[in-house]
Amino acid sequence: MKKDFSMWYTKFGPSGDTVLSSRVRLARNFSDIPFGNCMTDEHQKTVISRCREALPDMKFIDFSQMPPIEKQSLSECHLVSPAMAESQKHCGILVNNDCSSCIMLGEEDHIRIQSMAPGLNLDLCLKVANDLDDRLEQKADYAFHKDFGYLTQCPTNLGTGLRASVMMHLPSLTQSGRIESIIRSLSKLGLAVRGLYGEGSQALGNIYQISNQVTLGVTEEETLEKLNHLIADIIQKERDQSRLLYEQNRISLEDKLMRSFGILTNARLLTSLETINLISDVRWAINLGIITNISLETLSSVFYSVLPATITKNHNISSATERDLKRAEIVKDSLWAE
Amino acid sequence: MKKDFSMWYTKFGPSGDTVLSSRVRLARNFSDIPFGNCMTDEHQKTVISRCREALPDMKFIDFSQMPPIEKQSLSECHLVSPAMAESQKHCGILVNNDCSSCIMLGEEDHIRIQSMAPGLNLDLCLKVANDLDDRLEQKADYAFHKDFGYLTQCPTNLGTGLRASVMMHLPSLTQSGRIESIIRSLSKLGLAVRGLYGEGSQALGNIYQISNQVTLGVTEEETLEKLNHLIADIIQKERDQSRLLYEQNRISLEDKLMRSFGILTNARLLTSLETINLISDVRWAINLGIITNISLETLSSVFYSVLPATITKNHNISSATERDLKRAEIVKDSLWAE
Repeated sequence: MKKDFSMWYTKFGPSGDTVLSSRVRLARNFSDIPFGNCMTDEHQKTVISRCREALPDMKFIDFSQMPPIEKQSLSECHLVSPAMAESQKHCGILVNNDCSSCIMLGEEDHIRIQSMAPGLNLDLCLKVANDLDDRLEQKADYAFHKDFGYLTQCPTNLGTGLRASVMMHLPSLTQSGRIESIIRSLSKLGLAVRGLYGEGSQALGNIYQISNQVTLGVTEEETLEKLNHLIADIIQKERDQSRLLYEQNRISLEDKLMRSFGILTNARLLTSLETINLISDVRWAINLGIITNISLETLSSVFYSVLPATITKNHNISSATERDLKRAEIVKDSLWAE
Repeated sequence: MKKDFSMWYTKFGPSGDTVLSSRVRLARNFSDIPFGNCMTDEHQKTVISRCREALPDMKFIDFSQMPPIEKQSLSECHLVSPAMAESQKHCGILVNNDCSSCIMLGEEDHIRIQSMAPGLNLDLCLKVANDLDDRLEQKADYAFHKDFGYLTQCPTNLGTGLRASVMMHLPSLTQSGRIESIIRSLSKLGLAVRGLYGEGSQALGNIYQISNQVTLGVTEEETLEKLNHLIADIIQKERDQSRLLYEQNRISLEDKLMRSFGILTNARLLTSLETINLISDVRWAINLGIITNISLETLSSVFYSVLPATITKNHNISSATERDLKRAEIVKDSLWAE
């Protein structure tokens, strides 16, 4: 299972220098089952059995049987939402082999179909999500209104029920301070910019999650077209700014990034926060061609393997120091082995 | 010439884990030539020609013909005093092949015989200095008084004219704060403790120069016996404290020292001050067995090769940034090549 979980997000996708990953999420509810707090455990079981029958090729993971640390690990890897990881309800997920598709059953809505891909590939994500959506809909009708579209627990998802997002690595726009005005512009254009772990989370490691906010009165295609267009623009801005910074401050930038590499590969204790920031610098250095013997795939793999819950789960760890020690060991071994 | 200059101090001597080097200096003046400001250029020339004749196997370097940067480089490597490097007088030095013996002609006194050795080896230094002293004395009588001993320009050198000193690396006594009380004790016992570059200089890189202060009313042998005894005690204290710190804080100490190693071997810009402190950490790590693939000899060689004036002289450098860049390059190449 561990190996499967490390699959999709460690691959290099289109515009992978700047875009770490793409995701499409569809919120759906069955018309014959109550929403939210009106749901009983029986209702929940019906949702789960219906979906399992509709998608027998996907693996079902029962969350009520799962230790909290494993749920947190799935949440860290963006497979499930933090809310889902903390849920005490009878719930579970359906996942495919490389975990690029994951259906949350019993999150805010009955069904949350998620499809993820490395790099910038929202179109593929939407196609995969739509296929799963079609197969699920054959089991029972969705709650749908001719004016409002798909009905959802929270009104912000009404309409398409679609949330498309990309995870971007924007070190040069962050360092130059240009990110502030970009975030303001995107906000005015109906996009939300968040940190690595969704709403309210800070932009750790220069990583930003950019997603659509509007679901009502637009089509899925329009949503993706707009997002693709704006993301392409940010990619170009980041690449240009990065080159400019490098040309203007070649030596001091190399110094900064190589010091981070030196610390990352030699430290004996690494906190999660420091690691995320050091990996960000190394990723930037790889993109600039300063570091050539480490691949972005390896770096992504290391990144996900040393997140707090994942490392705790995989290595049977009992204290924070033990975790920081193991993290440093894994990072060093992985990056030296390249 | 450059290769010769890098010889004696890059070798590993007795107790070389803690004692970087030993030095003995004898201050002498001819009885028939005035001292200090009463000396004319002619007097100075007489001193020089007398000494050159007495020691034809040593190489004479005329300081009045030498560019300032080369004099500073000799001073950084402890071959001549800072005062000598800045002197505008007609002066020069006599050196042997590996620069372990150096006679300053035209410093404060007519003659300052210096003998240096790696590690703790004051007895050898005194023996070599005494041999040179005997050969010089055959040329002309020294200024000597039956009660005061050898007469010198400064009264603090009256008597034996001997200054014996060792350069010690004391990272654990520094980190634990114990060095403060040790310095106070040594001071009461008539020893002086200074930083890497003599009087008034701070203890950069945890390096301390310990020397006798008393020259009057004691013999050379008594001076060395006392110094050897006290140095042996400090060596033991440093070794014990180092082991204790390592046992009590194994991981955090390894983390600190390995981070320094990571920065030292990956930075693109290194100032002199930072380099001295990072090398101190790496030296400590080698002594503790944390780093095993770098020798103390290599580290010493790197240390001396990247000092400001030496690097400027050897690489024809014109700016501080260029120097910091070259320093980082040399350090990296030297330590990776091991």
